[in-house]
Amino acid sequence: MKVELVSVGTELLLGDIVNTNTAYLSKELAALGFGVFRQTTVGDNRERLIKTLESAFLENDTVIITGGLGPTDDDITKECVAEYFGRDFYFHEYSWVKILERLTRSGRNIITENNKKQAMIPEGAIVLENFCGTAPGIIIEENNKRIILLPGPPREMRDMFEKSVKPYLEKFSNKHFISKYVRFYGIGESLLETKIKDIMDNQTNPTLALYAKTGEVLLRITASDEDKNECEQLISEQLKEIEKRVGEYIYLVGDEDISGTQTEMNNVVANLLIENNFTISVAESLTGGKISSMLVEKSGISESFLEGVVCYSNKSKINTLGVNEETLEKFGAVSEEVAKEMALGVANRLGADFAVATTGIAGPNSDESGKPVGLAYIGIYSKGEVSAKEVVFTGDRELIRYRTSVEAFAEIRKNILEKL
Amino acid sequence: MKVELVSVGTELLLGDIVNTNTAYLSKELAALGFGVFRQTTVGDNRERLIKTLESAFLENDTVIITGGLGPTDDDITKECVAEYFGRDFYFHEYSWVKILERLTRSGRNIITENNKKQAMIPEGAIVLENFCGTAPGIIIEENNKRIILLPGPPREMRDMFEKSVKPYLEKFSNKHFISKYVRFYGIGESLLETKIKDIMDNQTNPTLALYAKTGEVLLRITASDEDKNECEQLISEQLKEIEKRVGEYIYLVGDEDISGTQTEMNNVVANLLIENNFTISVAESLTGGKISSMLVEKSGISESFLEGVVCYSNKSKINTLGVNEETLEKFGAVSEEVAKEMALGVANRLGADFAVATTGIAGPNSDESGKPVGLAYIGIYSKGEVSAKEVVFTGDRELIRYRTSVEAFAEIRKNILEKL
Repeated sequence: MKVELVSVGTELLLGDIVNTNTAYLSKELAALGFGVFRQTTVGDNRERLIKTLESAFLENDTVIITGGLGPTDDDITKECVAEYFGRDFYFHEYSWVKILERLTRSGRNIITENNKKQAMIPEGAIVLENFCGTAPGIIIEENNKRIILLPGPPREMRDMFEKSVKPYLEKFSNKHFISKYVRFYGIGESLLETKIKDIMDNQTNPTLALYAKTGEVLLRITASDEDKNECEQLISEQLKEIEKRVGEYIYLVGDEDISGTQTEMNNVVANLLIENNFTISVAESLTGGKISSMLVEKSGISESFLEGVVCYSNKSKINTLGVNEETLEKFGAVSEEVAKEMALGVANRLGADFAVATTGIAGPNSDESGKPVGLAYIGIYSKGEVSAKEVVFTGDRELIRYRTSVEAFAEIRKNILEKL
Repeated sequence: MKVELVSVGTELLLGDIVNTNTAYLSKELAALGFGVFRQTTVGDNRERLIKTLESAFLENDTVIITGGLGPTDDDITKECVAEYFGRDFYFHEYSWVKILERLTRSGRNIITENNKKQAMIPEGAIVLENFCGTAPGIIIEENNKRIILLPGPPREMRDMFEKSVKPYLEKFSNKHFISKYVRFYGIGESLLETKIKDIMDNQTNPTLALYAKTGEVLLRITASDEDKNECEQLISEQLKEIEKRVGEYIYLVGDEDISGTQTEMNNVVANLLIENNFTISVAESLTGGKISSMLVEKSGISESFLEGVVCYSNKSKINTLGVNEETLEKFGAVSEEVAKEMALGVANRLGADFAVATTGIAGPNSDESGKPVGLAYIGIYSKGEVSAKEVVFTGDRELIRYRTSVEAFAEIRKNILEKL
């Protein structure tokens, strides 16, 4: 099955809303083993919509359209599709009853004539009930081609896809598709690719895809087979070969999806702490609360996370963390020595097993020391031992802070693993 | 100018990432007065990409492509475009120097041969410097048509659009489009709409658009005219009328764009603190560092932000903030009383003018007290006075924490304004 996704809506062309439907449908279709070959967005415009349908069916056998099924005059998707397939409309009683029920239930006491428009169905179409809104979905099949019309609001679309479209599409596939997601830290995308280039070049099943994330790289391994166990087996063999070459950079192999640019390093560290009953304290100057904030994303961390101190002022570094005034004067707040004293200080406050501290220059300007923007020191306290690492990151304030936070988590991870 | 936006990337067709570039570019182009007539997404596939270019230039004079400028073999956008326009490549020394600088600065000591690919430029093209990544952007002009190639990562794309593409495109328009963004807090979108419905219905110039953000509402007012001053005048008159009706909910009128769902409440508070030489301390249980982290987004806050304490454990609440053990036992950690003691405790540590404290239940489960998920108390210390506010938010952990943080900033803002 070759699919084109068409989104209809002038609000999309104006950039007033982000199109999340397309990513959702693409991912669902990929999981069913169907390829999406193009995604197109057009406005509520008859001529352009019909042209888009013509062009879509030249290359593909299946078109899924979202949007333009509303009751108002500018919603014309259904009309254009019926025109394209040469179908007349009839009034679908069941849909009208459902529309009335929904409108009354939501307290609408004025039902206008244009609401009836949503109950008009092209002849010979399959009608998909809308459990979250008023516009029914529609499937038209003709000559081994099919078009599926879904409402635009994501909640309605997803519910209808899950309940009606997925079961409909499953009939066209006999294969399972299973993916694993491998996360790398400490190696760039192009170096990683060089190291596994022959595997990447010869991929057939499983297929591999590399994605550069902020500060890390993600590899998706997808296997397909009629037998689920065979999929798992194929992935496991591929993974073994990759681990042999670049295993030292892998910090997580998971089933989760990869939307968003967020790292998983914070959750990996949180899990390590929770599983091993270790405690941690955090002292943040540069990162200003980001490490603490990323740590508490994990539900169940409260037993492990003793305390975080955001010590933007020297007063806080001295009074709360016990950093030596002389150290501050001699080396400056952004220094290896201060990072170490911060880590030790915050660990000692409540007696944590591990502690991490950050100090650095987020920019846009340097401090009076003249040290470069992006320079940071990460102090680590690891069951009695204190160390520090110097890093330099580029980017704006937010990015420098984010990269330093992830690096700090990577350092804690390394130290926890050493103590296991 | 008639524009088609083309996004390139197999990861988009697989639904692995949501396409936010398209909405961003569409909105920016609309603000410049240019119409986007189609948005197309294709994979990293030579044949389909060239077909897409042919079809795009049939109907439009300008194509903007994002993605596929990376160093690896599957990045083929530049190659396809050069083929379409019949241009050869040459090695662009300046870009190569910039690429080397960036790679070395980010600590990459192995530069691979495929990095050089990014410095290859089609003959006669305009090169756009990439200040956030390695891939330079490219503009090719031919016979009143133009194609603009931008990197796929949103941060790089936006920075390049803002710095190079926008000034380039502005030459093609003789009208000025000026927008103001009005931010509301404490009023829902539909109530706000009701209160200014007649203005919304009769808009021509300026035009108005309402956007629901997480926990707040944003109104965009856009005026167009050949004369910049006339634009400002039109906006100012419209704004006056809106302020008359719903001014009490407005917390910021700004020129900034509206991408992202982030609030500006944190920056408003940071500015108030800096401008008035006030100091603040923060104690966070529920929000786990988010308030501190949002506060330090503002450059120059270091003089005002004395200290943040993330007191996830009771030990930290007692030892570091001086919360009474009896208060904790009697009322529980999630209570008005503890919120107040936390605010007072953290203010007293370093003698801050203001302090804010949060305690609550982020979920997914309640604590042993059985209090509902989403319940939170915000404690405020305001130059000697202590108060607390109860709030209940719905959503997942992240959302509850975010909403509580913004509400905390709104409370601080109110308290600072009272003390001016």
